[in-house]
Amino acid sequence: MRLLEERIVQDGLVLGSGVLKVDTFLNHQIDPQLMEEMAIEWKKRLEGVPVTKIVTIESSGIAPALMLAKLYGVEMVFARKQKSITMDDSVYTADVYSFTKQVSRTVTISKQFLSSDDHVVLVDDFLANGEAALGLCDVVEQAGASVSAIAIVIEKSFQPGRKKLDDRNYHVESLARIETLEMDHIEFIHE
Amino acid sequence: MRLLEERIVQDGLVLGSGVLKVDTFLNHQIDPQLMEEMAIEWKKRLEGVPVTKIVTIESSGIAPALMLAKLYGVEMVFARKQKSITMDDSVYTADVYSFTKQVSRTVTISKQFLSSDDHVVLVDDFLANGEAALGLCDVVEQAGASVSAIAIVIEKSFQPGRKKLDDRNYHVESLARIETLEMDHIEFIHE
Repeated sequence: MRLLEERIVQDGLVLGSGVLKVDTFLNHQIDPQLMEEMAIEWKKRLEGVPVTKIVTIESSGIAPALMLAKLYGVEMVFARKQKSITMDDSVYTADVYSFTKQVSRTVTISKQFLSSDDHVVLVDDFLANGEAALGLCDVVEQAGASVSAIAIVIEKSFQPGRKKLDDRNYHVESLARIETLEMDHIEFIHE
Repeated sequence: MRLLEERIVQDGLVLGSGVLKVDTFLNHQIDPQLMEEMAIEWKKRLEGVPVTKIVTIESSGIAPALMLAKLYGVEMVFARKQKSITMDDSVYTADVYSFTKQVSRTVTISKQFLSSDDHVVLVDDFLANGEAALGLCDVVEQAGASVSAIAIVIEKSFQPGRKKLDDRNYHVESLARIETLEMDHIEFIHE
């Protein structure tokens, strides 16, 4: 998606060791117009795919997931990284290891929000090692629901996540696929 | 806002000790259509108020804040409860005590996203003791920006937050003001 790639080149900061900071439009400050454009692009790419629910993980997935849910006219559920005090024990959980933060976290979704009839599009801001995406797939499949697609904003294609998801035959749609991430040079994959 | 009040009565669960669970449309599963209706209502009530930025706090404030930012055509910033690895030290912070969770947290916003020219509408899902709202006001004012209004989804009017904000002359717009919160009875304030 050219608009997103241009924004990454213009505003993104490469911090070294494969970390891309996009706090100006995605991870801290959010550009609502860009979120809507991204949702429109995902929906276009997912034409014909059944969608009854959008699922993401707090916090940076919420904004793009909400815009996509709005376009489809379906509800959005965000998995929690910490159990909320208002959650009871009827939950699906999966452990997700974050290589960036070097901690393992339990992602949690209440059972009442996923059913075996659901066709889910998962949304996440980054795809790197694929741990978060696989954890969300696990949670959705525990409910007997199906993962229709995995919608990613920025894929670090030089890290193993994309391959892991492809190997399991998930339908992945990444709006920007980064092949090379260097201080002064970002290169994208175009198919 | 009648639509929201009806939704609270229909789907909200009173857990006792003043805790209202609205996981079906606001805090875990999110209804995008309702978020948009809420944003339209806030904007109507805030007619004439200068707005250059929407600020909220992760995670449950993000969805309503995004819809409001989209309506105004401005950017949205969500304060973090944990410092992100991609954040440097140029941040504004405030300590916020959560009575519900009985922990103190530091809310953080990067300095680059607030300037003295900004007129900010703060958005939050709940107003109870007012600690989160006051922490956000503090962060905004550290930047020399002004708080144009505080937009709340659900106000627990029987708790002291609203009075604290009124006493400091903040402009508060709560879409649902709950006067009585009992297992079988929820009563709203209408002015």
